[in-house]
Amino acid sequence: MSEWRKDFLTGRWTIIAPERVNRPYEFEEEAPECPFCEGMESCTPKEVFSIRRNGTSPDQPGWFVRVFPNKYPALRNDIPFWDMCDELYRAAGGFGVHEVIVETPHHALDFSELSQEQIVRVLLAYKERLRFFEREKYLRYGLIFKNQGIEAGASMRHAHSQFIATPFVPHTVLEELEGAVNFYREKKQCPFCMLLVREREKAVRLILENDHFVAFVPYAARFPFEVALFPVHHSAFFQEETHLEDLAVVLSRVLKGVRKCSGMSSFNFVLHVAPYHAKDEEERGYHWHFEILPAFLRTAGFEWGSGFSINVIRPEEAAQKLRLCLYS
Amino acid sequence: MSEWRKDFLTGRWTIIAPERVNRPYEFEEEAPECPFCEGMESCTPKEVFSIRRNGTSPDQPGWFVRVFPNKYPALRNDIPFWDMCDELYRAAGGFGVHEVIVETPHHALDFSELSQEQIVRVLLAYKERLRFFEREKYLRYGLIFKNQGIEAGASMRHAHSQFIATPFVPHTVLEELEGAVNFYREKKQCPFCMLLVREREKAVRLILENDHFVAFVPYAARFPFEVALFPVHHSAFFQEETHLEDLAVVLSRVLKGVRKCSGMSSFNFVLHVAPYHAKDEEERGYHWHFEILPAFLRTAGFEWGSGFSINVIRPEEAAQKLRLCLYS
Repeated sequence: MSEWRKDFLTGRWTIIAPERVNRPYEFEEEAPECPFCEGMESCTPKEVFSIRRNGTSPDQPGWFVRVFPNKYPALRNDIPFWDMCDELYRAAGGFGVHEVIVETPHHALDFSELSQEQIVRVLLAYKERLRFFEREKYLRYGLIFKNQGIEAGASMRHAHSQFIATPFVPHTVLEELEGAVNFYREKKQCPFCMLLVREREKAVRLILENDHFVAFVPYAARFPFEVALFPVHHSAFFQEETHLEDLAVVLSRVLKGVRKCSGMSSFNFVLHVAPYHAKDEEERGYHWHFEILPAFLRTAGFEWGSGFSINVIRPEEAAQKLRLCLYS
Repeated sequence: MSEWRKDFLTGRWTIIAPERVNRPYEFEEEAPECPFCEGMESCTPKEVFSIRRNGTSPDQPGWFVRVFPNKYPALRNDIPFWDMCDELYRAAGGFGVHEVIVETPHHALDFSELSQEQIVRVLLAYKERLRFFEREKYLRYGLIFKNQGIEAGASMRHAHSQFIATPFVPHTVLEELEGAVNFYREKKQCPFCMLLVREREKAVRLILENDHFVAFVPYAARFPFEVALFPVHHSAFFQEETHLEDLAVVLSRVLKGVRKCSGMSSFNFVLHVAPYHAKDEEERGYHWHFEILPAFLRTAGFEWGSGFSINVIRPEEAAQKLRLCLYS
């Protein structure tokens, strides 16, 4: 059984998850058969959501996108929630949700090679899973993320993303949220909306935009070819997004560009949304977005010890290269 | 010329350092000769500190430990300090110090195989470099860290550590410091001192202790076999430590244990001290320490997106294994 533990000074949480030590690691040896492929449904836990051909049944072939609980979950929601603390130690039961979203029935490995139609289905699955848990009493956050490739921490090759819902708001989201709420209180405006106006005006870090979405290299990007992708219009919740076709176009093109420019196919992306049960100010000051992070070796002693990053490519130069990749 | 850039919401700083893109990467191909070995002094920048045999001259053989500026510095202090900001963007010149501390004149690769005597010299070099910059007007922090092995982000094999001094207090230190000062204000006691009493009493996460130092696995350890090493008696500044022989014994034994248990020789360690020009409360609430971090693949999408960690080995079990390694 896993357990949440909190560092008493920094407030950072760790999930102690001894069960995950046994999870298979497909990259070490070629697995005989891929449990994520169509036809192998009996090798995975029972599906909790799927987008499938009319008339086909759950846990049978015929699906386009399929979601099921992680077989080696870091967190689970079939246990009672408990929480204990004294002045130096705080722990909680390993409560939460941990699901796998298989992005294609075929053994494709690269997200950016999926068809537009298929990417729209994946985005729809994200939306549905985020929504499904938003009224759960003990859950404060739903996080969608993707690890593609061994350098990005993937343990399975078949294209998939993951959904983890947690009883605590993630540290990184709290930091953004705190900044956003303070900014909103002072200026009565969403800081991200303001940033998007500036980035689109200046255009030096801009990669791609259409009517509804904009992608750019962040001003203080931590990694070479890091990209941020935002909806142009204010929205705190991806769950409410309706322009999934437009988003699929931008996401797919950006990922192709990142792959070309970084010379590698390993990357992570994370989807940041406002917390479940967000307060009004949080909803007004926060703006959902994707962060796309190519998997260069990213954390050595300096980064661990300081929380600072060293990026060897100027964001403006990275943006120029990404634009060239997209339009060549 | 490098540049500091701040993320406007989270307050995280990135160093944009385009010069470092050209630094040699020794692991890709075996370098013909190692510039860190004795006799190769002309291949490095001029030394700024060394511990050497009486009668030998700077930048000549005869040294035990040798410190010189990084040839591909992320930061430098021979440039004027500038700082600019508006409501969304903040930047500063790439001001700071970036030095290499070569830990042995011989081509040894593993810190834990250095003699006790040699480790004491290395610790003395840490002390001297930290001290040297403590009165510089624009420097707020001095960070010692070590990357050993390719998985830990090292680009050179020869045993070395690094010193970086920065005009901003690192994010991770600020988080610890904020927690520590709040705790101190409330209880008039250093939280780390209190933690050390508890850890030594309970002993389930304890690895090793002597009169002056204690090593244990943190309660909310982020990584398998992560270890924290503290002086038993309150001290905010490593620069003031006098029991370097005792420390060398503990550090060397712990690193040997971590290497044995984790099955690998790649690791990072970082030395956290109170900031330069610390306020009285910061000095009373903070307690210097080493964090020792074995280099498992540590950051995938979930960790980047959340700031949470997943650790597959319970800290109490890791401590037990480490104790067994030490005493077998």
